[in-house]
Amino acid sequence: MEFIFLGTSSGSPTKQRNVSGLALKSSRRKSWCLVDCGEGTQHQLLHTPLALSRLSAIMITHVHGDHCFGLPGLLASAAMAGRTQPITVVAPAAIKGWLEHSQQMAETHLPFALNFIDVSQLNSPVMIDAFEISTTALSHRVPSFAYGFAEVVKDRALDVDKLKAEQIPAGAHWGQLQNGQDVMLEDGRRLLATDYLLPPRKPRYIIVGGDNDSPQLLSQKASQADVLIHEATYTMDVADRVGSGPQHSCAKQVAEMAEQSGLRHLILTHFSARYAYSQASQPNISAIENEAREAYSGQLFLANDLDHFRLNQLGELSLINQTCD
Amino acid sequence: MEFIFLGTSSGSPTKQRNVSGLALKSSRRKSWCLVDCGEGTQHQLLHTPLALSRLSAIMITHVHGDHCFGLPGLLASAAMAGRTQPITVVAPAAIKGWLEHSQQMAETHLPFALNFIDVSQLNSPVMIDAFEISTTALSHRVPSFAYGFAEVVKDRALDVDKLKAEQIPAGAHWGQLQNGQDVMLEDGRRLLATDYLLPPRKPRYIIVGGDNDSPQLLSQKASQADVLIHEATYTMDVADRVGSGPQHSCAKQVAEMAEQSGLRHLILTHFSARYAYSQASQPNISAIENEAREAYSGQLFLANDLDHFRLNQLGELSLINQTCD
Repeated sequence: MEFIFLGTSSGSPTKQRNVSGLALKSSRRKSWCLVDCGEGTQHQLLHTPLALSRLSAIMITHVHGDHCFGLPGLLASAAMAGRTQPITVVAPAAIKGWLEHSQQMAETHLPFALNFIDVSQLNSPVMIDAFEISTTALSHRVPSFAYGFAEVVKDRALDVDKLKAEQIPAGAHWGQLQNGQDVMLEDGRRLLATDYLLPPRKPRYIIVGGDNDSPQLLSQKASQADVLIHEATYTMDVADRVGSGPQHSCAKQVAEMAEQSGLRHLILTHFSARYAYSQASQPNISAIENEAREAYSGQLFLANDLDHFRLNQLGELSLINQTCD
Repeated sequence: MEFIFLGTSSGSPTKQRNVSGLALKSSRRKSWCLVDCGEGTQHQLLHTPLALSRLSAIMITHVHGDHCFGLPGLLASAAMAGRTQPITVVAPAAIKGWLEHSQQMAETHLPFALNFIDVSQLNSPVMIDAFEISTTALSHRVPSFAYGFAEVVKDRALDVDKLKAEQIPAGAHWGQLQNGQDVMLEDGRRLLATDYLLPPRKPRYIIVGGDNDSPQLLSQKASQADVLIHEATYTMDVADRVGSGPQHSCAKQVAEMAEQSGLRHLILTHFSARYAYSQASQPNISAIENEAREAYSGQLFLANDLDHFRLNQLGELSLINQTCD
């Protein structure tokens, strides 16, 4: 599984950070999913290997503009590029009418269908692209959701040690067993495929949160996830000064929940523009990092725009940034 | 008068060119006007000296998304930055309802008023910011307009030669005359201010066109303008291949009209993404330049994103790019 951050700023873009957007894909496929689509998401995509023609689904966490105002332009550009394949859109219901109004106003016609799913009605997991998608209701000024991306593991490895111990020779039989077919050997032995397949590996599972002032809502799911991507708009001192109005998380809150859940990989994003990108300015983004590290002992990342991560089959997370320019 | 190109691409953004947007201001004021607001316009502004707090008016040429999809995000960012001053919006009527729907959908409230003017009802010039704004209906798939920005010249220079010839000594009298006040000299002579003021200089006049397949609609106004900024989406060969559907201009059409009108300064913009930015690729943007130069003998520019121009009081146009990063 791979994902690329298209925007890591809260509310408004800065010179270094666009507003929210995250591309996520199976390493085996060319198709990909987009979580949130702030203004300028299509611009960011120009700096990645991802093509609009391969976009299979868009998930919107909530209706605030910094998470969805890029939708009309992105869809229009997909149309101009000649796309005809439908796109699945999972989003709050109000997005649907607004998208229709945007197309009507601009007198543009999309030559592909939007298969719209109201996120508030998504009560059980659904297969989209390569993933089983599940949602979690969060706490924000408007209904906001986290999207869980769980891979579906179909392939099971052969138990080669057992085959060798039982002196079953390598060859066509092994391939049949791996494909789940039972086998009759020449010596009369009948082999059941399930006896010679190792248990399926643990499916990888990534949670992408929307805006949320209550990270503990994700505690249970985070305990099962390989990666949690969550907003940390402020440090705690700033969150206290700002007050409860904006309903965002501070780094400490998220880090404490991640620690308690035993989460292996935490990626923070959606930073207030007050935290300078440059270490030479105050306050800068290291204030958020330091606060999170104090409470969290797992692998921590603070996302930057165009950061490209890979989560391998062993559940190891790495940054592979050379693919974006 | 100064102006900065915020986007010079047609339809979709490229790595080098954003979709349409142009900032225009009086050099004497900090306030400024925006013509068109494609997606990503607010991002481009971050690389200019212009602040959203000083934006006084937005003019939209037509409803296509590459000219207006940046409006909801730009207005939201102005709100988040604490703006309370109203903004004048001159635009096709459909923009108003769409903006209201966008704010309602995103559950955002603008803490400033939008003073909306339906461009199709703007039958006579109106003062906005430092300029007398007039419109010209163009020819495109949807109603499209050019906006004329004419400065209002109030200051008139003293006719110093005449004052000296009549032996009127320099001093407070000169200042009174320049302010339009008549003067009684100690020797009994009564001086009428209008007799000692030179004719006002020619007001500068810049026309910013919207999408348009019939440049000749601007012939008469171009003959009075200092600068015409006009789309040249294609070269003629490509325009012929594309056919009449998109209703855009080719470089030759615009250049011929400009030549016939005796226009001094022509700036082309809104280039199809097929014309590469790099000279190493084919076709590249020099194809449009070459086609225009063949037909036009005035000063020609092909706009690039963040190009910053100044038109001085003598009507001389220059590129002063060091102000943007």
